[in-house]
This record gives sequence, structure tokens and C-alpha cells, in this order.
Amino acid sequence: MEEEGSYWKTSITYVEKNKILVRGYRIEDLMENLSYGETFYLIFKGELPNRKWKKILDALLIAGCDHSLFCPSVAAARYVASGGVGLQNAIASGVNALGKYHGGAIEGAMKFFYILKEEIKKEGRMEEAVKEFVLKYLKKEGRVPGFGHKLHTDKDPRVLKLFQIAQECGLKGEYLEIARNVEKALAEIKGRKLPLNIDGAMAAVACELGFDWRMGRAIFVLSRGLGIAAHSYEEIVNGRPFKEVPLKQIRYVGPKERGLPIHRRDEK
Amino acid sequence: MEEEGSYWKTSITYVEKNKILVRGYRIEDLMENLSYGETFYLIFKGELPNRKWKKILDALLIAGCDHSLFCPSVAAARYVASGGVGLQNAIASGVNALGKYHGGAIEGAMKFFYILKEEIKKEGRMEEAVKEFVLKYLKKEGRVPGFGHKLHTDKDPRVLKLFQIAQECGLKGEYLEIARNVEKALAEIKGRKLPLNIDGAMAAVACELGFDWRMGRAIFVLSRGLGIAAHSYEEIVNGRPFKEVPLKQIRYVGPKERGLPIHRRDEK
Amino acid sequence: MEEEGSYWKTSITYVEKNKILVRGYRIEDLMENLSYGETFYLIFKGELPNRKWKKILDALLIAGCDHSLFCPSVAAARYVASGGVGLQNAIASGVNALGKYHGGAIEGAMKFFYILKEEIKKEGRMEEAVKEFVLKYLKKEGRVPGFGHKLHTDKDPRVLKLFQIAQECGLKGEYLEIARNVEKALAEIKGRKLPLNIDGAMAAVACELGFDWRMGRAIFVLSRGLGIAAHSYEEIVNGRPFKEVPLKQIRYVGPKERGLPIHRRDEK
Amino acid sequence: MEEEGSYWKTSITYVEKNKILVRGYRIEDLMENLSYGETFYLIFKGELPNRKWKKILDALLIAGCDHSLFCPSVAAARYVASGGVGLQNAIASGVNALGKYHGGAIEGAMKFFYILKEEIKKEGRMEEAVKEFVLKYLKKEGRVPGFGHKLHTDKDPRVLKLFQIAQECGLKGEYLEIARNVEKALAEIKGRKLPLNIDGAMAAVACELGFDWRMGRAIFVLSRGLGIAAHSYEEIVNGRPFKEVPLKQIRYVGPKERGLPIHRRDEK
Repeated sequence: MEEEGSYWKTSITYVEKNKILVRGYRIEDLMENLSYGETFYLIFKGELPNRKWKKILDALLIAGCDHSLFCPSVAAARYVASGGVGLQNAIASGVNALGKYHGGAIEGAMKFFYILKEEIKKEGRMEEAVKEFVLKYLKKEGRVPGFGHKLHTDKDPRVLKLFQIAQECGLKGEYLEIARNVEKALAEIKGRKLPLNIDGAMAAVACELGFDWRMGRAIFVLSRGLGIAAHSYEEIVNGRPFKEVPLKQIRYVGPKERGLPIHRRDEK
Repeated sequence: MEEEGSYWKTSITYVEKNKILVRGYRIEDLMENLSYGETFYLIFKGELPNRKWKKILDALLIAGCDHSLFCPSVAAARYVASGGVGLQNAIASGVNALGKYHGGAIEGAMKFFYILKEEIKKEGRMEEAVKEFVLKYLKKEGRVPGFGHKLHTDKDPRVLKLFQIAQECGLKGEYLEIARNVEKALAEIKGRKLPLNIDGAMAAVACELGFDWRMGRAIFVLSRGLGIAAHSYEEIVNGRPFKEVPLKQIRYVGPKERGLPIHRRDEK
Repeated sequence: MEEEGSYWKTSITYVEKNKILVRGYRIEDLMENLSYGETFYLIFKGELPNRKWKKILDALLIAGCDHSLFCPSVAAARYVASGGVGLQNAIASGVNALGKYHGGAIEGAMKFFYILKEEIKKEGRMEEAVKEFVLKYLKKEGRVPGFGHKLHTDKDPRVLKLFQIAQECGLKGEYLEIARNVEKALAEIKGRKLPLNIDGAMAAVACELGFDWRMGRAIFVLSRGLGIAAHSYEEIVNGRPFKEVPLKQIRYVGPKERGLPIHRRDEK
Repeated sequence: MEEEGSYWKTSITYVEKNKILVRGYRIEDLMENLSYGETFYLIFKGELPNRKWKKILDALLIAGCDHSLFCPSVAAARYVASGGVGLQNAIASGVNALGKYHGGAIEGAMKFFYILKEEIKKEGRMEEAVKEFVLKYLKKEGRVPGFGHKLHTDKDPRVLKLFQIAQECGLKGEYLEIARNVEKALAEIKGRKLPLNIDGAMAAVACELGFDWRMGRAIFVLSRGLGIAAHSYEEIVNGRPFKEVPLKQIRYVGPKERGLPIHRRDEK
């Protein structure tokens, strides 16, 4: 059905005896000259990032590194670790949880920002375009991804720092500005602050760096992956095997005890 | 924030010393009197199935039990197995693949059938309602879930047998009829046969049995889970560790070897 | 490196247009004539089970179907479900947890029973051989897999029912007898009851049925898979997105707030 | 059963309104002053790494970033991606594969090096101690983890570069020396070169940095995680849904078609 050798196609890595080329560059050159964040950029985007972006690329991946057991992925990973599996299996189960409601907002917010940017371009005036678009979006989707946080309702230190480093690294700032305008529009529409959260801030920075919105979840995986891994390790080393949920956390709300109807019995 | 004991709520199982109630029934009563398929029904739906449904419930879960390495979940599970992990980890990786394009059509088709049924009710005439709805759906979504198969283009034995058993077990047949009408409408619209496939047939039967469409993927997990598990075991026992993709299956299409630009060097 | 077509080898399923053979049998014949439990046996062992085993095969898979949130796999699956992922992803994360300390004892106990059986054969006298072997094993491994339960310390209803059905189905009972003898030996050695638990009972029955001990985890995956799937569904439908661990469940025991040493600053 | 708040214990991260402390440090301080590799060290080890280790910490995580489809984890992730799941689910399935035979050798080699170091200390003479220990180990385990590579049989560029950077960063070099001595001993014993591979080199460097051997798999997860993520993305964007294994890669070696025995029919 397929020609020889065309079953898998990849432009990421070439391998031969004693040689490994990642996006065309020798892996030892990357190890010698690039940071982890720059390597992340290269392996995803195919080209080297701007030299000035080194700090923001690492900061982007450090920003989401952990938030303790407040996030379900870490709780899940720790439960899985207690089942007596390999460290990587516990991590994988945590990573599996990073869906629509958990880090997935990066993806959604990036898409939102990219489309909104086009709208602003068409409309001309930032403020008006943003407000109109947010209104329309809220009507259709109910909420804008990347805004609002239960705990950090005010000044999430990660958001502030990420924006500061982004500016220091010479990013243009177009998407940062858009993000702040959306925040303003939301406050006006809702009548209360719905702050840019860490997902939204990571999304705005990722847009500045030119990442495809479909890479959004990978950014979070390699960021929160740090915390998920460290928590899994902590559970394996300090936790007890087969960690169960204590009785007092569970409320059974199902049917009371009942017998099988007589005609269901003895007929299997 | 929460009252004691309200953190987890569940209506599935109650446990105390020497007693386990599943949906209110003693587990030993289920072991004595129910089949696996009936237990699947009970644990998901909360009530016992009609006694006559025993055979169709098992057949539904057997229908998708394996399709060899033609499906990506099995290939994935076998590769993971070769990494030297627990059998359950290989199975989990395979199950993880059962998404939108792989078994996930059951979910989509169930939703489609349930909505179409309402349309038919409103419109009155089956044939017209189906054709109109399919046309509209194709326009919007491109394709109808649960129809078309690369290999079994004609008479998928699983589909035929599932429908036969469904009738023998006294299911009403409303969704089976709708499924066949959709097949007919698609043939007319497309000018070629796009047969009801196994996902679509399992969906139609699951609708007959009153399952929520959001349970669709669970049906496939416990069905194809059999094959994924058996293949993972076969790989662990007979395969070689670290199964790699042979060179001839891969075509590298990325950039040629290139040096890092001089200004990127020695500055880390 | 490999001949055409020898890259994957499988003896499980053969597929061609409109034909699917599982272990040589047409899939429609299985749907028509076998139960889920019998299909499980066939797909793993390659041959049809004894006709009399139908009930015990299903009971084996129903026995472990759920134990509420007392088991970490279910808690993990529910947390993952709350992240906003596909139902199958939540299930996969739960299945991933079924390791050494969680269902994995079936594997360990099967191996233990198979070796012990050989020892008994050599030694001749059941009681003496068991006691000696258990003593040696405890010395080396600390505990015997498949014995002891926190909650069901006495008469686990699943264990009793499984053994009863096994006898009704005409299993020889050799491994059941061995299991009971190990229980007796443990009570004598430890001075308190360490009852055969559900893992141990499933293991003894699986030995009777001739399953390879390396299939042990698959038995539990397809059994507890029912509960994991139902709980994941319940969480998706009734739970709230991004289920976090409440503050009062967490005790932070790490270092107090501290500043980065001055020489670590401003140098990135 | 448990006191309030003692259910989960963690020393990794403390969170309150607008404040996140990772191992006691404010997260914005980490973003401002640490690299990704340094953050990895901090979150796992609990303390800041030596300032001179910045380059080796990143290089350690870059070294294993990708090796194309030669590794089963990447193939698995791509198959799962083709099933129509979230990017993070494909990544998780790949990470799940990083077991005993796939990156897991880092863990094994670290343990091996740590024990060997103690042996050398007792014995006094490096060469003799190494040879004796390797001989004993080979006898018991069959092979030493971290040595031997199918493709890079000679001068794996990653190994050479990792050792060079390790020396530049002022690591003591004790474990690097041990690793080279093991290589020498293996060559003498086996009569052919069994080179230190990337797992072994990462293990030796990780020992130099004082990581616990049980962290070994996490190092590989966050390293190869880069490649697994990039490949998953490539498959989602460029691949086709439901990627199946081509017929010519599969050899069916099971039983020929056979009918169910007559007594198995019609009795369900």
C-alpha cells in the first residue's frame, strides 16, 4: 500500500551511527550551546529562537512548575504512585489529566488571542474590537479561557513576572497588550475583576514567541511535568502503599441494600 | 469549604466490613446471578437490565474485542509493553488511544441517533427526516460517525450478528432501523455504499439499551480492552525488549545537517 | 534487517475483508455462542474453555468489579476525569495504577501457588510442605501476596462466593485447597488470622483455570476496569471541573519562606 | 482515622493567595534567577544546586531529548495521537513506555554505580574492585545496565559531550571515572567493546550531582519528554487519523480458521 520508507515521516530528528541531528543540528552542539527552553523551542518550531529569548523560554516553562495538590493531576499521580508502579507511570497518569480544564486553557487562550488579533487588525481600534469580540465570545462559549483564578484573584506573582521578563527579553508585546485589554473588557462586562491567570499569561507569551496554539498543552506538560514528577517521587519514597480515600471523605448516595428479585436468581 | 464527608459523592458502591453493595445489590448476588455484560449494565445504569438482554449485552462487548494490529491502540500497547513496564501500563496506553477516531465514533453515533430520533418524531416520516438530517449534518461536520470501513466495505460480520442478536433479545429495534435508514440515505447522497460499521452498530444497540451517549467510550474500552490486553501479554512474553521501528519504515524529511551559527556558540 | 511481514507476529486475530478470526474462530460465532468471560479465556489462552466453566469465568471478572474510592485507582481516575479529558483517558489513568500493591498481588499469588504446588508434590505431605514454604517465603519477602485485608478481616463475601462457584463448576480445587492451607499456616505462624483476600482468591481460581501468572494483572484490569469506568463517568457527569484537594487535607512540611541568596540573583 | 490535614503531606510547594513557594523560594524568584535545569534540581532535591552546575543540568536534560522513532515510546505516542486524543494523552502514553528497557537503565546504572563506589572504597584499588564487582554482577544479572548500544557502538556524541561539560562544570568526576572503568572491565571480560551508552552516561552524571537513583526515570521523562511531545504534535498536525499497521508488517501465526465444536453452539 505504501512505498518503502514512507510509512513514518518525520522532520524532527535524523539518526545514524554516532550521529544525531535534531532539526539538522548535531545534538552535542545543542548540549553545548542551548538551554532547555531553547531546545524546547527548536524541537517544536524547527528553527533556533532569537538569542534574546533565552530567559523568557525558561521562565515560561518554570512558571507552571508546581501548584501543590490544588491541581487534580498531582493528586492523581500520587494515588497512582501508591499502587506500586514505575515512577514514569505515575507521571504519565498525572500528565493524562492536563485536559480542557487543567492547563488546557493555554491552548484555548492562544487560539482566542490569535483570532482576536486578526479582529483588531480589521477593526482598527483595539479597545472597541476587544470588547465586541469578548462579548460575542462570552455569549457563545460562556467563558473566556485564561481568565479567573480561585485563589490568586489579584496579583498572581507568576503572571506579573512572566510579563516583566517578556518585556526585558524584547518581545513585541502585542499579545501581552491584548491580554491586558481582554482583562479590562471582562472587568467592565462582568462588573468584577476576572484576572489574567497563569494559563492565560503563558498563552499570551507563547503567542509572542510564535508557537502554534496546538502546542499549548505541550508547554504545560513540560512545565507542570516537573511538579507531577517531584510529587510522584515524594509519594513513592514517603507515602504508604495503596493509599486509600478515608471513609470520612466519601458520602454514599446510592440505593440502600436490596435483594435481587427472585426471578433473577439461579438461572445463570 | 466542604462539610465532612461531602468531598466525594458516589452512588455506585457501598463498602463496610465483609459487605460490598454495588448499586444496592450484594456483590456475591451479582457473582451468583449476573453475567459480565449484565454487571456492566448495572454498574453504569444503576438498575438491572431486562432479563432477555443477557445475550446482547455480552455480544455488544465481544463484538469489538479485537481487530489485530490494524488499530493503533494495539500497536501502541505493544510498543509500550516492549519498554519493560507492567502489563497494566501497556494496556492503559492502548486504552488511552481510544479517542475521537478510534472507537470514539460510538459516542458520536449515539448522540447522532438520539437527536435524529427526535427529528423523526417531529417530522413524522422516517425516510424524509433521515435524509434531510443527514444532508444537514454532512454539510456541517463533513461525515457521519459510525459509517464507512476501509476493509469491511460490505458485510461486516460483527454488524450483521449484532443486529440479529438484538432482534432475538427482543429489543424494539427503533435505532437499528434508524441506522439502516441512515446507511440508505448516505448511499443515495454519496452515490456509493458507506456501510454501517462496527462503531455505528454498537452505537445503535447501545441506544436500544438506553445507554447515555457519554458512556459510549466505556463500552469500547471494555470490549477492545480484551484485545489490547491479550496483545500486550503476547508482546511481553514473545516480543523483544525495546522494540524499535526499523529504518526502512522511516523517511526523514527535515533539514540537512547544519552548523549552529557562530554567534550562538560559547555563550551559555 | 527483517523479512517483509515478520516485523509484528501475532497468533491472536486474523483479519481480511468481511472476516475476523479470533484464535481461528469467526467472531460472529463467538458473539453467538460465548460469554464475555469465555471470550476472555479464549483470547488469552488460545483455546476454548471447558463448557462447565462459564459461570466461574464471569464470576472471576465480576468479583473485583468495584470497591468504591477505597482503592487509589478510582480516586486517580476521578481526578483525571475532572481535568476535562476523554472518558477513556480517565479510565487509562486508573488502570495504570493497578501495580504491585493494587491488584498486582494476583500475579504474585499465582506465582506463589504454582511454585508451592511443585513443592508439595516433591515433599508429599501438604501441611508440612506449606508451612515450611510459607516460613521460608516470609523470611525472604516479608509477606505472602494475596493474604490480609484491612476491612474484610473475616469473611470477604467475594472470596466465599468465588470458591463456592469454583466448586460448582467442577474445578479440581487443588489450588483452592492450597490457598486455604496457606491461610492456616499463616494463622499459626503469625498467631492471628490473615485471611485469603480477593486478590489471593482470584489468583487461586485463575490457577485452577490454568492461566499463566503473567496474565494476572489483565484479569484485574478487566474486572476493576468496570468500576474505574463507572466512577470516571460519574465524575464527568456529576463532578465539577478541576477537582482540587481541599486545603484541610494537606499539610505542608517543607522549608519556610526564604530568599534566594544574593549571589544567585541577576545572573541568568 | 487521620487527623485533619495529615492526609497528604508534602514538602515541595506551599500555596496561598498570590504566593507560591517552591521548596521555600518564591516562584517569581525562580523564574527570574534559575534555569529549567536548576529548577529541576531544586524541586527534586529541595536545595539550590551549585552555581557552577547550570550548564550540566541543562545538558543532562537535553542529552536524551530525542532519538526519532528508534525508540518505542515515540512510536507508541504517535499511534495514540492518531486515535484522536488530546496532545497530553499522546505524550502520557509515550512516557508510560519509559520502563526497565527504555530509559529505565538510568535508574539501574545509578544504583549500580552507587554500590560499586562503596565497594571500591572498601577494596581500595579501583581497577580490581571494578572488575570483581562487574564479574559478580554479570553472573547474577546477565548484563550491566547503561552499557552497550546497537547503533552508537563507538563514540556516542551525547556521552562524550556530557562528560566534557561535566568536567568543565567542576564535578568531581568520581562516577565518571567509575563508569569508564566499568567500560574497560566489560571490554576485557567480554573481549569486545560494550560502550557506555547514553543511559549510563546520564546515570554517571546524575550520581555526580547527588540525585537519588529512584529519581532516574524522572530525568529521562523530562528529557525524552521533549521528543515524545514534538513527535506527538507532528503526528497530530501531519499524520492521518487512525494510523493502522500495514498488512505487510504483520505475520499471522495463529490457528487456521476452525468452526466452533457443535456442542458449543446454541446454548448461551
